[in-house]
Amino acid sequence: MNLDSRKLLERISALGKVGRDDNGCLCRIAASDADQQGRDLFTAWLKQAALRVEIDRVGNIYGIWEPMGSSGNPVVLGSHIDTVMNAGIYDGCYGVLSGLAVIEAMQEAQLRPKRPIAVVAFTNEEGVRFTPDMMGSLVTAGGLSVEEALAASDINGSILGAELQRIGYAGSQNPGFLRPHAYVELHIEQGPVLEREGISIAAVESLQGISWQRITIRGIANHAGTTPMTMRSDAGVAASSVVLFLRDLALSIPGGVATVGTMLFEPDAINIIPASAIFTVDLRHPDEAKLLEMEDGLKKFLRNLAHGDIAIEAECLSRFTPVVFDPIIVGAIEVSAAGRKLLCRRMVSGAGHDAQMIARIAPTAMIFVPSRGGISHNPAEFTDENDLIAGATVLLDVASKLSL
Amino acid sequence: MNLDSRKLLERISALGKVGRDDNGCLCRIAASDADQQGRDLFTAWLKQAALRVEIDRVGNIYGIWEPMGSSGNPVVLGSHIDTVMNAGIYDGCYGVLSGLAVIEAMQEAQLRPKRPIAVVAFTNEEGVRFTPDMMGSLVTAGGLSVEEALAASDINGSILGAELQRIGYAGSQNPGFLRPHAYVELHIEQGPVLEREGISIAAVESLQGISWQRITIRGIANHAGTTPMTMRSDAGVAASSVVLFLRDLALSIPGGVATVGTMLFEPDAINIIPASAIFTVDLRHPDEAKLLEMEDGLKKFLRNLAHGDIAIEAECLSRFTPVVFDPIIVGAIEVSAAGRKLLCRRMVSGAGHDAQMIARIAPTAMIFVPSRGGISHNPAEFTDENDLIAGATVLLDVASKLSL
Repeated sequence: MNLDSRKLLERISALGKVGRDDNGCLCRIAASDADQQGRDLFTAWLKQAALRVEIDRVGNIYGIWEPMGSSGNPVVLGSHIDTVMNAGIYDGCYGVLSGLAVIEAMQEAQLRPKRPIAVVAFTNEEGVRFTPDMMGSLVTAGGLSVEEALAASDINGSILGAELQRIGYAGSQNPGFLRPHAYVELHIEQGPVLEREGISIAAVESLQGISWQRITIRGIANHAGTTPMTMRSDAGVAASSVVLFLRDLALSIPGGVATVGTMLFEPDAINIIPASAIFTVDLRHPDEAKLLEMEDGLKKFLRNLAHGDIAIEAECLSRFTPVVFDPIIVGAIEVSAAGRKLLCRRMVSGAGHDAQMIARIAPTAMIFVPSRGGISHNPAEFTDENDLIAGATVLLDVASKLSL
Repeated sequence: MNLDSRKLLERISALGKVGRDDNGCLCRIAASDADQQGRDLFTAWLKQAALRVEIDRVGNIYGIWEPMGSSGNPVVLGSHIDTVMNAGIYDGCYGVLSGLAVIEAMQEAQLRPKRPIAVVAFTNEEGVRFTPDMMGSLVTAGGLSVEEALAASDINGSILGAELQRIGYAGSQNPGFLRPHAYVELHIEQGPVLEREGISIAAVESLQGISWQRITIRGIANHAGTTPMTMRSDAGVAASSVVLFLRDLALSIPGGVATVGTMLFEPDAINIIPASAIFTVDLRHPDEAKLLEMEDGLKKFLRNLAHGDIAIEAECLSRFTPVVFDPIIVGAIEVSAAGRKLLCRRMVSGAGHDAQMIARIAPTAMIFVPSRGGISHNPAEFTDENDLIAGATVLLDVASKLSL
C-alpha cells in the first residue's frame, strides 16, 4: 500500500502559498486572517475526503474517518498549521497533510481498520502571538483550562477567544472530546543530524526537557583606561565565563545541550567597563536527572562567580520535564523503515512539539525526516521530496498497524 | 605663596551651574548655546584678571598675563570647559580655572616671572558632537588642519565653523600662534587609584597608547535544542573566549588594560545559536612595544579561533601611540608635592587629554588629583575640596618654577 505522494507534495506547496505578506513572506500566525485562510483550505480538503470535521473550543480541527465496523478511540495523526513570522512551509504542515494523505491512502486501498483514524491540526503551536506555545495540544491534554487559553491576549490586547470567533474557528466540542488510542506526529527534524548522517527516518523515542533562565550579572561601570585590571568588577567578563562554562558543562554531559542566545551589556560603550550583563540560558537534556544536574552545575558556578562587587540573579523563564515516547510505537516506526528499506535511527527531539503534550494522555511517538542544513523557522527550510514521501509512507505503515 | 582657594571653588561651582538642561543635567556640549554661556563666563573672569584674551580660529580661548619684563614663549596652563552629556563639574574645568587662579595668585604676590603665563581652554575636547575629540589641542599641535576641523559636522549637519561663528567664538588667531615654553594640565584622575591608595597628587609621567578595534565573529545560526554541541559554530561562545583571553592577556602584561565594553549577538533569540557576535576591544598600554604585543596577541588568538564555519574580521577604529611627558616637569611636580607635605606618586594616564596633543610641540606634563570612586563623565563625579586645593597649589609651584 502506498500513498498519493504527488497530491501530498502539491498540498504542502499549496498551503505554503496561503498567508504570504506583502513581501512574500509566509506569516500564518495563529488566529489571524492568514490562519483562517489556511484553516479553510485544510477543512475543504478534509471534506473532499469525506471526513467528519469537528472543531473544539480552542480551535483544534479534527478530520475523522470512521470506516464501517470501526469502533473505540481513534488513532490520531497530526501536528499544526500555524507558523512563525517569515516561516518555511514544512514545519507542522507536513505532519498534518501527511496524516490526511495516510487516511486517503487507506480509503483508496479499501482498508477496514478496527479503529477510527483522525487527523488533527492543533491551534497555536508556535506561540508567536498568544502564549503559551503548543496551546491547543496542552489544553487537549488537560494542562491548561479552556478558559485560560481563550483569555490569552496578544500585544495589541486582542483576545484569542474573540479572534477564534472572528475567523469562524471557535468550535463547540470540548478539547479532549476525542481521546486518542495512539498519537503519531510526523515532522521535519529542524536539526542537522539526519542530513549529516545520510539517514532518512528517525524514530523519535523521547523529547528533551527544557530549562530556560535569564541571568543578570551586575558589576561596576568604570573607565576602561584608568581602572587597573585588578580593580575591576567587569560584568561582561563574568558573563563570558558563564558562556564558556555552559559549553563545557554540556560537552561533559552526553546528550545535553546548552545555549546562550541573547546577550546585553550595559552601558554598552567602547570605553566603559560593563556595569551589567543580561543573558539567557537554554539547557536541554532528554533525562530529567541529567537536566537537573546541568541546572545544578550552573547554579554552583554562579554562586562561586558572585563575590565582591559582582552580584548575580537567575530567573526561571520556562521549564519542561523530558517526555519519553511509547516504545511500541517507536518500535513500529523502526519496523516500517526496515521493511521499506529506509535507513533509520533512534533520536531525541530537541524541540518542543504537540506530541509532548498528547503523550500525557495517550501512547505517542514522533517520526522525523531530514532538514537541509538543520534550518527551520526560515524560508530556507527544506526537505527533499524523497524524504517527505518516505516519512509519510512510514506514517502510513504505523497508522495501519495501530488501527488494526 | 598660596592661591585664593575659596574663589577657585566658587568658580568651579558657578561654571558647573551653566548649561543645565530642563532636567538639571549638565550638558555643555562643544559650540552649543550652553558652551557659549560657559565661554562668556570664563572670558569675563579672564578680563577681571586683566589678562589679554585671544581666541583662535578653532575657538581655543587664551588668557595671557605678560608681566612687566617678561618675554619669550609663555608657560601655558589649561584644559577644556566643554562637557559630555549629563556631566560632572570637574572634568576639564578644574584645570582651566586652576590655571587662572595660579595667575591671579602670582599677580597678588606681585611676582615678576621671566616668561608670560597663559591659561587656555581648548575647544571640543570631549568630541561628543564633533569628531575627533581633543580637537582644539590637536589643531594647535598641527595634527589636523584648521579647515578640516572647522568643516566637521554633527549628526544634524551643523558645521563647527558656522556654529563657532554663531556663538561668537570664531577667533582670528591662527591655532598655534602661541607656542608654549611648557604646558601643564591639572585634571581629576577619572580612575580609582589615588583614592584607594590615599594619595593626593599624581605626577603623570606618561599617557597610555590606545588601540580600539571592532571584532565581528560569524558562525552559523541553528536551533538550540536540535543541534548537538559538537555540530555547532556558535559565534557567542567564540566571542566569550575572546573576552576571557583579553582579560588574561592584560593581566599578563603589567600596566596593560583590555576592555570589551560592547557586545551584540544576532539574531539574539533565546533558542537560536548566535550567528554572529559583534564587539569592541579597547587595549591600552603606556609602552608602545607592549601595546603592539597586546595587539599581536589578540591577532594570533583570533587567527587560531577562526576555523571551520567560524569567520572573524577585525577593524581598527582608533589608534594612539603612548605619550611620554617631560621628566623635568614631572620632577618639579614631585618636588612641589614634597615641599607641600602632600603624598605623591607617579602615574600613567589611562584617559586621553589635551596634554597628549600639546606634548608634540612643547615640554608637557599633567597633575592628577583623586576622583571619588573613580567616577567621571557622570553627575556623581567628585573630588574633595582639600584635594582640589592641593592640586592647584602644586600647579602654582610648578608654574612659578617654569616661568622663572
